[in-house]
Amino acid sequence: MSRVYNFSAGPAVLPEPVLKQAAEEMLDYQGTGMSVMEMSHRSKPFQSIIDTAEADLRDLLAIPENYKVLFVQGGATTQFAAIPMNLMKAEGGVADYIVSGSWSKKAFKEAKMYGTANCLASSEDETFSYVPDVDAIKVSPDADYLYICQNETIYGTTYHKLPETGDVPLVSDVSSMFLSEPMDVSKYGVIYGGVQKNVGPAGLAIVIVREDLVREDVLPFTPTLLRWKTMADAGSLYNTPACYTIYICGLVFKWLKEQGGLEGIGKRNHEKAALLYDFLDQSKLFKGTARKEDRSIMNVPFITGDADLDAKFIAEAGENNIANIKGHRSVGGMRASIYNAMPVEGVQYLVDFMAKFEKENA
Amino acid sequence: MSRVYNFSAGPAVLPEPVLKQAAEEMLDYQGTGMSVMEMSHRSKPFQSIIDTAEADLRDLLAIPENYKVLFVQGGATTQFAAIPMNLMKAEGGVADYIVSGSWSKKAFKEAKMYGTANCLASSEDETFSYVPDVDAIKVSPDADYLYICQNETIYGTTYHKLPETGDVPLVSDVSSMFLSEPMDVSKYGVIYGGVQKNVGPAGLAIVIVREDLVREDVLPFTPTLLRWKTMADAGSLYNTPACYTIYICGLVFKWLKEQGGLEGIGKRNHEKAALLYDFLDQSKLFKGTARKEDRSIMNVPFITGDADLDAKFIAEAGENNIANIKGHRSVGGMRASIYNAMPVEGVQYLVDFMAKFEKENA
Repeated sequence: MSRVYNFSAGPAVLPEPVLKQAAEEMLDYQGTGMSVMEMSHRSKPFQSIIDTAEADLRDLLAIPENYKVLFVQGGATTQFAAIPMNLMKAEGGVADYIVSGSWSKKAFKEAKMYGTANCLASSEDETFSYVPDVDAIKVSPDADYLYICQNETIYGTTYHKLPETGDVPLVSDVSSMFLSEPMDVSKYGVIYGGVQKNVGPAGLAIVIVREDLVREDVLPFTPTLLRWKTMADAGSLYNTPACYTIYICGLVFKWLKEQGGLEGIGKRNHEKAALLYDFLDQSKLFKGTARKEDRSIMNVPFITGDADLDAKFIAEAGENNIANIKGHRSVGGMRASIYNAMPVEGVQYLVDFMAKFEKENA
Repeated sequence: MSRVYNFSAGPAVLPEPVLKQAAEEMLDYQGTGMSVMEMSHRSKPFQSIIDTAEADLRDLLAIPENYKVLFVQGGATTQFAAIPMNLMKAEGGVADYIVSGSWSKKAFKEAKMYGTANCLASSEDETFSYVPDVDAIKVSPDADYLYICQNETIYGTTYHKLPETGDVPLVSDVSSMFLSEPMDVSKYGVIYGGVQKNVGPAGLAIVIVREDLVREDVLPFTPTLLRWKTMADAGSLYNTPACYTIYICGLVFKWLKEQGGLEGIGKRNHEKAALLYDFLDQSKLFKGTARKEDRSIMNVPFITGDADLDAKFIAEAGENNIANIKGHRSVGGMRASIYNAMPVEGVQYLVDFMAKFEKENA
């Protein structure tokens, strides 16, 4: 077995100890005589798995008591609809969106199906290479919520400051920065994300929602399973959840605790990002594409400025144990996603390879 | 490692060779240097996994060319809403339902949110222990579809004859009988089910839908991801799907082919069911609860008639390597789910144990 350095933007690299444990427990989970895949979601062993996962997540993020944690299916994309369905007033819902990349743009478009959605600011004018100035934002007085995608995976930008929303709940898609460093949950109405970038395998989203936003009076045609109240009341077990995916996320939470929690992993993530950005900033060949002040510590897009050279780099990287370094199909170039499970050595290996490539192609 | 005989109604027993292969490939899938969990859903290896899974499923069920296969999240429960959203006329949708158990009842209730839903027949008068007479059904002339749940997991009944619907599409939830024996797909408009009973781990539903029912003009507030057209146009890759779950289902499809396809597994399933029903029919202690003509070959509920004795049986079974034999919390008693991956020896072991228990408690 030889493992590659996998810079995929998601689904993405997972901690090796987690995969090893999953493999070992595949046919017999802790003496139950069955795989977690085969386990009734109403059984004691599975109840313990989901309870422990939630408790560990609450520990890691220091989630206040008055927030519910929901394990749901359908990815962030389903929440693009569920958010307005759960939060918009039935008579004339209004929501504000900041559009800083493809994902917030998609969420904004979906919200229009359900009420008035305002785009307060957009960075599309410069290919989403920056985050709009949050100090210039004026939240609509009748807004049901303000929506942001806090880390845009494709363009490698992140909000280093949050917009002031007063009493209007802030809703944040954190898919590609989930659990990458500490965050103050109490500043948000809703934090949510797909887990397949930094937390676990694809097929699960986690919604962390303040209790007063878990409402009975959602838009009338909201499917039962898209109502946050359904999932909150049932402890995410209204129907059969993505049991095995929840189990793997639980193992990742345990691993994160062993890394010193979000403080520990956050420190390492900043070191990893600095390693790569420092190289990019002195390189004569490679160039980061996101505005410096808005750089993500998770997704690092870069280019040579020459599409043929980009292609050559991607091909040679692939031959040298560097997988999925190609940029998103919508923007081209390269992108290194350096999530929690990417070791420092992986980033160092990439930087060394880039330095060698630069020398050879000077 | 010691495995139990797991009679869970779902999530449920999976073929041991599938679990072994999954464990072996966990850290390095076929030389890619990564787990399937870590694989970009836009990568060639994953595209090959999902393409192969679909092709094998099409082979197994002999799915005609004019049917789409969709791999979706959210379980059958999300489809309870998606079905009326995709099939009901925007101006005054009408749907007919036969209510033969808890699952069709839930689906019926959900449909009422979206238009007129008619209950054509129900077997609730006798605790859903039988399937209503399909010959007595008269489909509404303006119905957008007729809905059935073809095998009710909790009550252990199955339709051995389908209702005649003429031009009205027949929609069938086959969750707990999926791939248990051959079926004629061309008789249906939509066949769908959660995979967590007979096909794979929880977190995926499969929708097999006739092309003309994959429509653009769905109900206007239908979330993008719940529109079948979204998933059909994107080959189930509009957003990140439940990749690992699809991979496991793919392994199960290969295993099914090795068992002689649905003919082979169907023959074995009928043998397994006969073993258990024959014992029940001669037993003086145990009694099957479903009407004989409507018995399921997958889910076999039974009772002693004495709740204390039921509890004693369940406890002793648990001590003797028989897991999850307890009936659904809504009906009590016992239930043996004897899905594809339950070996004949497992059913024989159960029957022997029941005979011993009967003798000891005569």
